[in-house]
Amino acid sequence: MLRIGVLVSGGGTNLQAIIDKIEDKTIKNTQIVAVVSNKQNAYALERIKKYNIEGKCIKPSDYLTKKDFTLALRDYFLSLEVDLIVLAGYLVVLSEEFVQAFPNKIMNIHPSLIPAFCGNGFYGLRVHKGVIERGVKITGATVHFVDEGTDTGPIILQKPVEVKENDTPEILQRRVMEEAEWVIYPEAIRLYAEGRIIVENNKVKILDSI
Amino acid sequence: MLRIGVLVSGGGTNLQAIIDKIEDKTIKNTQIVAVVSNKQNAYALERIKKYNIEGKCIKPSDYLTKKDFTLALRDYFLSLEVDLIVLAGYLVVLSEEFVQAFPNKIMNIHPSLIPAFCGNGFYGLRVHKGVIERGVKITGATVHFVDEGTDTGPIILQKPVEVKENDTPEILQRRVMEEAEWVIYPEAIRLYAEGRIIVENNKVKILDSI
Repeated sequence: MLRIGVLVSGGGTNLQAIIDKIEDKTIKNTQIVAVVSNKQNAYALERIKKYNIEGKCIKPSDYLTKKDFTLALRDYFLSLEVDLIVLAGYLVVLSEEFVQAFPNKIMNIHPSLIPAFCGNGFYGLRVHKGVIERGVKITGATVHFVDEGTDTGPIILQKPVEVKENDTPEILQRRVMEEAEWVIYPEAIRLYAEGRIIVENNKVKILDSI
Repeated sequence: MLRIGVLVSGGGTNLQAIIDKIEDKTIKNTQIVAVVSNKQNAYALERIKKYNIEGKCIKPSDYLTKKDFTLALRDYFLSLEVDLIVLAGYLVVLSEEFVQAFPNKIMNIHPSLIPAFCGNGFYGLRVHKGVIERGVKITGATVHFVDEGTDTGPIILQKPVEVKENDTPEILQRRVMEEAEWVIYPEAIRLYAEGRIIVENNKVKILDSI
């Protein structure tokens, strides 16, 4: 049984997409053992109640230093013996103490085709604003493992999405979620649960199913 | 009748894709009035003979300065009254005297999804090497207007292409040509010939056909 811990800051729509695929058995032998938010009132914590998933708030302001916070978060996931940590709209930058404790075991989704429109400053709507300002015709989403850099880790899956002429950042954000994020994030977790993702030379290989 | 001038350095496979679509009338009311190579032995100059297209070699080494070369090239196209200049694997960097003489009238194709894997140093196989080294899963091609920067002009069309696990730069280059370049370059020229491409605020709008 794969044990997943999830980090959220907001509504948790990607979390919902993943829960749906666990519930309908597309993703097998997998359990979300905890959802941790840095905000007490994140709607994601409401969302999980009906699934009997443990929700918890661990927030930086409850700790003296960023390092104390990081270690508390790390130790919580270590105590739960999680196999995989999934970032689902988590807006806190994770320190290297955390990342190094879970090498190639932290997944993130970024709402563009990395290496375009990623790195410092590109998060949330800013990504889609950047896409529209440049007049790009194809954007998408990327699931990747988290390393010490920002959006620099091994890429697991990507899916392109068309930009349309009258798109606002909000409209484009929604299309990228529906057509790409909610498709490839559960898919990446399914592949991980099936033991089909390996990382070699900082690159992901996906093994065929048996 | 749209009058096109083409600049090439090598085989001219993109040129061939465009000629094919003019010959089969997908692109209407369009004539290639000259193909100019910076290399005497470019195969593209052979390729065009059977279509009765004028071929010419204008090369930097025949001129005292880069500026003299640029002005000769510019004046040649001005004398032919070209409406559009198409770069089809042209490996000379065009100076601003040339670019400014044909604002939003020079098209280029780049073998990636701009702004990924573009700019200085990214041309030919180097683009596909970069894609493979980063472990990206989706690449593609971009048709854009040429401005004074490198790959910074308004984007006209883009098409994504899947990167496969055992791709070499050569294999990937071929797939990007077949699945994207030879599709979107003729398509962009067709839209241009139909008067359906407008540039506003440095961004391309494509008008619906009437």
